[in-house]
Amino acid sequence: MGQDGFTAQKRGTSTLPTSAAPNGGSRSSRSLLRGGGGNRQIHKTLNNIKITILCGLVTILVLRGTIGFGSLSSDNDLENQAIIEETNRILAEIRSDKDPDDPEENLDQTTINLNDTYSLGAKISNWDEERSLWLSRNQDFPNTINGKARILLVTGSPPSPCDNAIGDHYLLKSIKNKIDYCRIHGIEIVYNMAHLDKELAGYWAKLPLIRRLMLSHPEVEWIWWMDSDALFTDMVFELPLSKYKDHNMVIHGYPDLLFNQKSWIALNTGSFLFRNCQWSLDLLDEWAPMGPKGPVREEAGKILTANLKGRPAFEADDQSALIYLLITKTEWMNKVFVENSFFLHGYWAGLVDRYEEMMEKYHPGLGDERWPFVTHFVGCKPCGSYGDYPVQRCLSSMERAFNFADNQVLKLYGFRHRGLLSPKIKRIRNETVTPLEYVDQFDIRHSSAQVTTN
Amino acid sequence: MGQDGFTAQKRGTSTLPTSAAPNGGSRSSRSLLRGGGGNRQIHKTLNNIKITILCGLVTILVLRGTIGFGSLSSDNDLENQAIIEETNRILAEIRSDKDPDDPEENLDQTTINLNDTYSLGAKISNWDEERSLWLSRNQDFPNTINGKARILLVTGSPPSPCDNAIGDHYLLKSIKNKIDYCRIHGIEIVYNMAHLDKELAGYWAKLPLIRRLMLSHPEVEWIWWMDSDALFTDMVFELPLSKYKDHNMVIHGYPDLLFNQKSWIALNTGSFLFRNCQWSLDLLDEWAPMGPKGPVREEAGKILTANLKGRPAFEADDQSALIYLLITKTEWMNKVFVENSFFLHGYWAGLVDRYEEMMEKYHPGLGDERWPFVTHFVGCKPCGSYGDYPVQRCLSSMERAFNFADNQVLKLYGFRHRGLLSPKIKRIRNETVTPLEYVDQFDIRHSSAQVTTN
Repeated sequence: MGQDGFTAQKRGTSTLPTSAAPNGGSRSSRSLLRGGGGNRQIHKTLNNIKITILCGLVTILVLRGTIGFGSLSSDNDLENQAIIEETNRILAEIRSDKDPDDPEENLDQTTINLNDTYSLGAKISNWDEERSLWLSRNQDFPNTINGKARILLVTGSPPSPCDNAIGDHYLLKSIKNKIDYCRIHGIEIVYNMAHLDKELAGYWAKLPLIRRLMLSHPEVEWIWWMDSDALFTDMVFELPLSKYKDHNMVIHGYPDLLFNQKSWIALNTGSFLFRNCQWSLDLLDEWAPMGPKGPVREEAGKILTANLKGRPAFEADDQSALIYLLITKTEWMNKVFVENSFFLHGYWAGLVDRYEEMMEKYHPGLGDERWPFVTHFVGCKPCGSYGDYPVQRCLSSMERAFNFADNQVLKLYGFRHRGLLSPKIKRIRNETVTPLEYVDQFDIRHSSAQVTTN
Repeated sequence: MGQDGFTAQKRGTSTLPTSAAPNGGSRSSRSLLRGGGGNRQIHKTLNNIKITILCGLVTILVLRGTIGFGSLSSDNDLENQAIIEETNRILAEIRSDKDPDDPEENLDQTTINLNDTYSLGAKISNWDEERSLWLSRNQDFPNTINGKARILLVTGSPPSPCDNAIGDHYLLKSIKNKIDYCRIHGIEIVYNMAHLDKELAGYWAKLPLIRRLMLSHPEVEWIWWMDSDALFTDMVFELPLSKYKDHNMVIHGYPDLLFNQKSWIALNTGSFLFRNCQWSLDLLDEWAPMGPKGPVREEAGKILTANLKGRPAFEADDQSALIYLLITKTEWMNKVFVENSFFLHGYWAGLVDRYEEMMEKYHPGLGDERWPFVTHFVGCKPCGSYGDYPVQRCLSSMERAFNFADNQVLKLYGFRHRGLLSPKIKRIRNETVTPLEYVDQFDIRHSSAQVTTN
C-alpha cells in the first residue's frame, strides 16, 4: 500500500518513468532535451493537427450528445456525456498550450537533473499515531463538530487577475456560493491563491496544498477539494459520511469506466475528499510523480494516452494520473469509494437547462439528477482565454446555477430571484412581527429534511 | 428610546422631514418635484461648481496631509486625515452622480406619495423576549461558541460585474481575506449580493440587510457589517467584547469630532457592530428614514450638510445620517461605544506605506497604529469608474495590505510572500517530519498571544 515512486522501464512499455530513473529512462528523456527547440516546433504543429481532429470529433459527439441527452440511466449516454466533458476540458488546455497557472520562470531545460527524486515533502510515516496523540492532547480542537466529522473545504484560484474580466466576477460568485453552503453545514473554507510548489502548478497544485493542509490542521478529519468552477446547487444535501467510515478517499466516477474501459474520464478530480490520515499522505506521494512540469509531465502524458481509453495526447493531468494509478495498483482501491449515487461532481451541460423542471417537480436534499448536489462547469474556463463552449452559453448557465442555489439560501430571508437569469430578487412572503416562526421552518440547519447521518 | 420616524417642520429648520409629512413639509417637496427638469439641470451645474471647489480644497489638504503625516497622536493630523478621507469618498460619489448600486428603474417622480411612511419592515417590539425564549428552546443553536459570543460578519457587493475589471479581482481577494480571518476566529460570514430593498440601495443597503439577518439568525449575538473595501490586516487581534457588555453598538470614531465639532466624518460606518436586540432594531428604524432614494434622500442631504461640519452638498449618506441622529438624539449614546483604541476601521493612506516598518518593529495582535486591525480603502473604489486616488496607488496599496495579511495566514503553512507586492511565495522554514510542532507554535488559534477576553 505504501509504495514510494515507481520503477523505470525502457520507453514503450506501460509502466511509469521515475524521476529517480536508471539510465534507460533518462536517456530517452535527455535525447528529447537535446532536440529542444526543433522538437518544440514539431510538438506545436502536432498539437494543431490534433486540435483539428479533436474539434471534428467533439462536433460529432456534441451533436450525438444533444440529440441523445435525457435520463442518465443509459450507460451509453453516460459515457458520451463523460467523453464530451473531458475532451472539451482537455481541448481547452491544449489550445492554451500551457497550464493556466504556469509559473513565469521557464525551466532551464539543459540543467534539469532527471536523477532528482521528486517529492511532495519530507516522508512522514507515523501520521496516524501522531495525529491521534495530538487530538487527545488538544480537546479544544476535536475532529468532530456537533457530532459530525470536521470537514475543511479547499478551493482556490491564481493570484493574478483573470485573462477574461468576467472570470473574476464568476470566481467571486463561486466563492460566495461555497461560503453559503459551508456556513449552513458548519464546514470551514480555505481559499488558496498561492503556488506552494512551482513544479506542481496548474491542476496539479491541489496535491501539495492538500498535503500541507492535512499536516497543518490535524483537527480536520476530511479535506474536500473543490474546483473554482464547481457550484453547490443543493444547499440541503449533506455528504453521507457514514458510508465512508471504512474509506479514505471519496471521488465521483463510474467503476465500469474505470476498470473495464480504463477510460481517462472514469473519475473526476474536480470535487473529492481525502481523510486526514497516513494512507492519504501515501497516496499523494504515489500520485505526485507524474506532475512536475516539463519533461517528466510530458513523458508521463504519453504513458497515460497510451493506456487510457479516449485520452488525447497532452501532458499528464492529475485526473488521468490518478485513474492510471488506481487501475495499475489496484491495492489502493479498497479504501477508495467511487461515488455516483449523488452528484459529488455534476457535469453542467445536462443539468442547467432542467432547473425549472427540478423546482417544479422535486426539492432540495436529493443531491442527484433530480436536484444535483454540485454543478461543475467543466470546460467553461471563464477565467481563461479559451473555453470550449460558447462564452455566452457558459456565463448564462453559471448565472442560472448560481441563482438556483441562491434561491435556496434566500428562502430563509423571505426572498427569491425573479428568474434564474435575474440578479433582482422579490419577496416570497410578507413581513411579519413573528419572524422566529420562519426561522424554525426555513433555516436549513433546523430542517428535518436534512440528511445528517455520519 | 423607541421613537419611530420624525416630525416634519417647514423647510429651513434643522429638524428632519418625515415621509409621513403634514402639508408643510410635503408642499416644499412637491414644489421641488414640479420644478423637476429645470431643477435637475441647476442641480447638476451646482454640482460641477462644487466639484471644482472641492478639488481645489482636496489638493490643498492632500498636500498638507502628505507633508504632515507621521504619528497619529496629533489631533490636527487626525482631523485632517479624516477630512481628506471622507471628502474623497464623497467626491467620488458626486462625480458618479449616482449610487454605484442604484437599481435600474428610474423612480417615477410624479407618482411618489410623500405621505407614505417609509419603514424597514413590520414593527417588532418584543424582540429581546422572543429571542431569549427561542434560545432557551434551541440549545443546539447557542449564542456563544467556545465561550465566545457568536458573531456574524456581513459584507457584500452588487450582483453585476464591476465597471472596472480589476474591481472583481479585488473583491475576490477581499473576501478571501475575510474568510481567513473568520476561519481563524470562528466567525460566520454572509456575503450579500442582493438588493433587499430597492429604495435603500447603495450605502444604505446595509440597513435592511442587517435587520433581516438579525431576525433570521437569533443565534447570532453580534452582527458585524464590514465594507468590501476593508481588509483585515491583523490576523491575531480579536474584538475585546467584554468592553462592550453594556453596549449595543460598536463603531470607530472620535467623540470630540462627534459632539464638539459635529463633523460629518466623526464615525465610520464601514466597519461596525450591532448587538442582536430590540435596541438595535429601534435604532435601525430611527436611522433609515433619510435613506429612501429620490427626493427624501436629497432633502435629507441638505439638512445634513447644513448641520455637519465639513460636509459637502449631496444626498444623504448613511454615515452622516447616523452622526446627525446621534448628536441630535443623544439619548441613544449610552449604548453606543465609540471605539478608537484600535483600528476597527483604519484609513489606508496613513498605514500602507508602513507595513515593512511594522513587520520590523512590532507583531500581530496589537490592532492599532502599530499593527492595524483593519485597513480600509476609503475612496479607492476599484469596482467603480471613479475613485478619488490614482488607480495604481490604490491597487498597489491594496495588494500590499492583502499580502501583509496573507503572510500572517501563510506562516502556519511555512510560507510568506516574496515581497508585499509579490503574488509569489517562498518557504520560511524547512520541511519537517514532525509538523505538529509547528501547528502548536504557529496556529493562531493556539497562540497565547491571542486576546481572548469576552
